[in-house]
Amino acid sequence: MSKTVLIVHAHPDPASLTAQLADAAHDALRAQGHAVLRSDLYALGWKAVYDAADFPDRLDPARLSFVAESGHAFRAGTQPADVQAEQAKLLAADAVVFQFPLWWFGMPAIMKGWIERVFAYGLAYGHKDAGNRHRYGEGGLAGKRAMLSVTTGGPAADYGPRGVNGQLDELLFPITHGTLFYPGMEVLPTLAVHGAGRIDGAGVEDAKAALAARMRGLFDDPAIPYRAQNGGDYPDRHQLAADVAPGVTGLRAHLR
Amino acid sequence: MSKTVLIVHAHPDPASLTAQLADAAHDALRAQGHAVLRSDLYALGWKAVYDAADFPDRLDPARLSFVAESGHAFRAGTQPADVQAEQAKLLAADAVVFQFPLWWFGMPAIMKGWIERVFAYGLAYGHKDAGNRHRYGEGGLAGKRAMLSVTTGGPAADYGPRGVNGQLDELLFPITHGTLFYPGMEVLPTLAVHGAGRIDGAGVEDAKAALAARMRGLFDDPAIPYRAQNGGDYPDRHQLAADVAPGVTGLRAHLR
Repeated sequence: MSKTVLIVHAHPDPASLTAQLADAAHDALRAQGHAVLRSDLYALGWKAVYDAADFPDRLDPARLSFVAESGHAFRAGTQPADVQAEQAKLLAADAVVFQFPLWWFGMPAIMKGWIERVFAYGLAYGHKDAGNRHRYGEGGLAGKRAMLSVTTGGPAADYGPRGVNGQLDELLFPITHGTLFYPGMEVLPTLAVHGAGRIDGAGVEDAKAALAARMRGLFDDPAIPYRAQNGGDYPDRHQLAADVAPGVTGLRAHLR
Repeated sequence: MSKTVLIVHAHPDPASLTAQLADAAHDALRAQGHAVLRSDLYALGWKAVYDAADFPDRLDPARLSFVAESGHAFRAGTQPADVQAEQAKLLAADAVVFQFPLWWFGMPAIMKGWIERVFAYGLAYGHKDAGNRHRYGEGGLAGKRAMLSVTTGGPAADYGPRGVNGQLDELLFPITHGTLFYPGMEVLPTLAVHGAGRIDGAGVEDAKAALAARMRGLFDDPAIPYRAQNGGDYPDRHQLAADVAPGVTGLRAHLR
């Protein structure tokens, strides 16, 4: 069945590996009959900084609470046009693919600023105006899928379970769990292309093929098995019950 | 002995808790006789987006490699004036304190963009132009200390060892380990003020006092015991030796 997929990508060079991979994902999705939306953040000249200009009609002109003003602007329809346009694409999408180079073990600032400005209160957090009641597995983006596709400079070994940088899926947990699963998206395992700084033509073709294969599984591959907040494992919505993964601590405790 | 401390902080409202805590840190440091530098990123109008404008004199005008151009611009002295000014403060500092609200479990985009633009190749990575040879415990910022001071909206329980958001020190590992320990800084345990959205006057005073106490220990408190890349635990500079923390995987494996 035909779906709609949003590809958000971040590199200023149209010939970059990031741009090439975004194009490869696009082509693979179109070949399956899906509709594709694109947010090429550098080409858009995306405003990365979340600030008072995001709230032209303030609830409280004296003090800037991002949570309160975000909820107010989202409800009242007073968000900036660029934010509204991105939210419309996000809401139209059945899945979102984020393609970016890993900079200091996270998203480039321009993409972090896309999250901050687009993931409004009432949409991506504060669902149903019920504080933290609906999150992690349910929320304003429930029913959608998400996937990170990253390029890194170093070798794969550096990101392995005992690699010097730290295990990649734990480094990305603030994004996969804290940003995408939080508003209810099903998050697929990350695709990583390592050694991007020295990649040759054959390596680029391999990377495109790997991403195309992942695009073919975008709506069928199993998601990362994060625990839903309201699925019974967190009876008080704050901490794991004592009998769930007893004795396990840290990020891994949140995997079923 | 008198030292110099740089406080980097990110909130646009001069009356915000972030600004108040930056001021409290400043006062506590001055009371000890230290010199304080400030980088109030919103007040500076900091350019968050790392892009071609950062490299007015390109090594390769046709293709934009951030690593290659960053190294070239840093060596040649062709970096933008705002980047050079921040690097001068960073190099003058014996310690750096980052004060920010935790947004989607990371730094606000404006601060992430400060890292991306200021932490140049040749300064914060690619030390001595030797690739990844000198990192994690040694590098261009060795001898300096660093500390994160964050505010969060949720309760402390949500960030505990079995809290629904994930354990705070593991969520921040990409910053503490991957960004600050990477170029050689000694990183202190993070100070977190939780429930910032509902904090009252007494809560603010408690938070200021807690931060002031941490500032008094800034040069003496024990750092997070991350393993140095070249200290023997990573004989190939990529992975932990089999006999180091045998069987332990993930972020915690990198703690001594």
